[in-house]
Amino acid sequence: MPITKRTPLPVAEAVNKIMSHIQPWGIEKVSITECDHRILAEDLTATHDVPPFNRSPYDGFAIRSDDTKHASLDHPITLNVVETIGAGQVATLEVKSGTTVRIMTGAQIPDGADAVIMLELVKELVNDNKNQIIIKRTVQKDENISFQGEDTQNGTLLVKAGTKITPGIVAILATFGYHTVSVYKRPVVGILSTGTELLDVNEELKPGKIRNSNAYMCAAQVRAMGAEVKLYQHREDNFDSLYKSIKAALQETDILITTGGVSVGDYDFLPEVYKKLGADVLFNKIAMRPGSVTTVAVYEDKWLFGLSGNPSACFVGAELFVRPVILKGMNLLKPHCTVRNAKLSSDFPKPNPFTRFVRAVLSEVDDGNVVTPAGLDKSSSVSSLVEANCLIVLPGGTRGWEKGSEVGVITWHGEGSEWPWDHPLFSKSSAIRTVEKQH
Amino acid sequence: MPITKRTPLPVAEAVNKIMSHIQPWGIEKVSITECDHRILAEDLTATHDVPPFNRSPYDGFAIRSDDTKHASLDHPITLNVVETIGAGQVATLEVKSGTTVRIMTGAQIPDGADAVIMLELVKELVNDNKNQIIIKRTVQKDENISFQGEDTQNGTLLVKAGTKITPGIVAILATFGYHTVSVYKRPVVGILSTGTELLDVNEELKPGKIRNSNAYMCAAQVRAMGAEVKLYQHREDNFDSLYKSIKAALQETDILITTGGVSVGDYDFLPEVYKKLGADVLFNKIAMRPGSVTTVAVYEDKWLFGLSGNPSACFVGAELFVRPVILKGMNLLKPHCTVRNAKLSSDFPKPNPFTRFVRAVLSEVDDGNVVTPAGLDKSSSVSSLVEANCLIVLPGGTRGWEKGSEVGVITWHGEGSEWPWDHPLFSKSSAIRTVEKQH
Repeated sequence: MPITKRTPLPVAEAVNKIMSHIQPWGIEKVSITECDHRILAEDLTATHDVPPFNRSPYDGFAIRSDDTKHASLDHPITLNVVETIGAGQVATLEVKSGTTVRIMTGAQIPDGADAVIMLELVKELVNDNKNQIIIKRTVQKDENISFQGEDTQNGTLLVKAGTKITPGIVAILATFGYHTVSVYKRPVVGILSTGTELLDVNEELKPGKIRNSNAYMCAAQVRAMGAEVKLYQHREDNFDSLYKSIKAALQETDILITTGGVSVGDYDFLPEVYKKLGADVLFNKIAMRPGSVTTVAVYEDKWLFGLSGNPSACFVGAELFVRPVILKGMNLLKPHCTVRNAKLSSDFPKPNPFTRFVRAVLSEVDDGNVVTPAGLDKSSSVSSLVEANCLIVLPGGTRGWEKGSEVGVITWHGEGSEWPWDHPLFSKSSAIRTVEKQH
Repeated sequence: MPITKRTPLPVAEAVNKIMSHIQPWGIEKVSITECDHRILAEDLTATHDVPPFNRSPYDGFAIRSDDTKHASLDHPITLNVVETIGAGQVATLEVKSGTTVRIMTGAQIPDGADAVIMLELVKELVNDNKNQIIIKRTVQKDENISFQGEDTQNGTLLVKAGTKITPGIVAILATFGYHTVSVYKRPVVGILSTGTELLDVNEELKPGKIRNSNAYMCAAQVRAMGAEVKLYQHREDNFDSLYKSIKAALQETDILITTGGVSVGDYDFLPEVYKKLGADVLFNKIAMRPGSVTTVAVYEDKWLFGLSGNPSACFVGAELFVRPVILKGMNLLKPHCTVRNAKLSSDFPKPNPFTRFVRAVLSEVDDGNVVTPAGLDKSSSVSSLVEANCLIVLPGGTRGWEKGSEVGVITWHGEGSEWPWDHPLFSKSSAIRTVEKQH
């Protein structure tokens, strides 16, 4: 088999190529009880004022402030309590001069009243079988009234489409009567691992074989990105069986992720599969470690992600390339990994001919972020994936890095970013400047 | 109705009271495809070495290094290719002197071989119908071999019980054959809003009424904490109906959250419900704003959380008090909100007689975190819940805060904390020190 010459693309260019092909996934309505973490496909506007009516912020008495104009310690005034209302009840009587309505927090201010005096500030008594209160101070007009619309006015834009639904947004939905809400559809992502060496998770080890961990890991990543996963039985390295399985899987998925088989070895059949499908290969070589052979292709309206069979490369490929396709297709405003700056906590002596993604642990200390490479940085290591919560991004063309250097990291936690790849610390020139500053 | 005197408890003491009552939720087995975000109830150990056998990290040729002892540009040596193996295949022949096995990445090193030379470094030819390679350099023993166990050794403890399952941990599960895994059960959390003023989300507004937003918001918070939610129809402020509904809901839930009805107003019936149930009220007044009337009680092996009907207080109460009960009951190592330091981006002139929790937006800038109060800080405001991603914690007994002050915040994002309440910035003394430093 001829070894095809592949031209490595810088990471930013590779992601850019992907971005220009993304189409939205479409819209569906879901119930307010099933919309957690979904991406809004409609703007949310206030459908009424909040509060929707003038209401009492305290337990107290609704009064006419005019009645208290001359009230003082020496000249207390007396009002007749004509009614009591709790939240949700509406007074049947108007508050006329000399009268008051006992009112609980959240209840609508009765007609005629223009102020509320708190429970603790009055003396209650029963006189001649009538409930009365005594007030020994003046109360200003509008005192202790939450006015209609003072929090939010009818028609106010509250949340923009493209925002992820949080518990706070659920409160908005409920308040304004959105019992269903328009959200972007979640694409169906198929995951199909390839490799004659693979066993399923419930199989016993055999000589030369390892269990398939990529598919399960990748499925968890993709579910965390908010897509639906279809897990396919892994396949041996056999062109006909692979072609058939992939062609079939494409019928029932929006995105098909394969793992393994994308390199140039004797049993790497994915390049031929793309060819026979007639898929448009956007790139098949990226100037990055790990995962330089990551291949992305489009076929009709479907996506094909050929991730490396190496667990670490597979993980990185999903976060860098699959994530924005899923999330930008939902019009999420920040579809990429979050970017952070951090101080490197130990030397990283390896040179970086290509952009290197180092699994690492980011932690916040008193004066900023610190990042520590996670365990061994062998690309075969699965154990360092346990502690890693970010990837250090070391620009290609840089030599080793010293403890204390300022580096850029990307993380799948946090609010995401609009476009991480123009971050100054991700380019060689600023990296060299940083290293020089150390000396 | 008599106004009961309640003694406000400092927040830390209130949480502490809760912590001493927490019992684990029990353990269940779940499938590897359904364990995302669950909390491990067993330690994960390596059930075999990784790699499980000596393997090739590259496409190349497995050789006996001794054969190349005298190889050089001037004295190339020739080896006969006796077999080709891909990953997952095991060589049938031993590599004897003068022979080699073509080997692909991930395949097991054949018997007899003690090194691999990369594909790019040999010349392949066919001679006399036999495949041969020519090598023009020496190869060291053990060169390009990934040794059995070099990443992880059989029996190594990889992940401790009490850890939340991430995609990286799913990879560990798959690698080591855990097709099911022991996790802590998710408690069933009932949510029942009280208040005659409440309408359901699909009802039209009526005078004096508002839609129930607390139950839906709280449900989303509790699901995000990893528990299962049972949403009950909201109830009017009527003692008999409330008592009956709460008693019934307790039969099918581990935790019952009510919203509203815990204050001392005429229609606040929750205190009487606790009394009639014979529930053990841990506290019913906390030295905090909002949510000072938050009440927590235990009844048999159930929890009762009486959150305030005010949306902001309800939100805060769930994060401060319900979160650790759910997560500590799953033995999560960090069951509380995450703590961060940040610089206040604007003045906060209100004095804080009690510990104040201000909804705010935390963002990372080049030289640390900045936090900005979210919108109006009216406790009735639902709209500021949209942008808020944290709560500023202003210790009780402090006056207003100036722009630029260092403050502590807690957030429901991030890795959680073991115990946030001894953070120096949450105590009055350090706060005063901080304020003084400003002048």
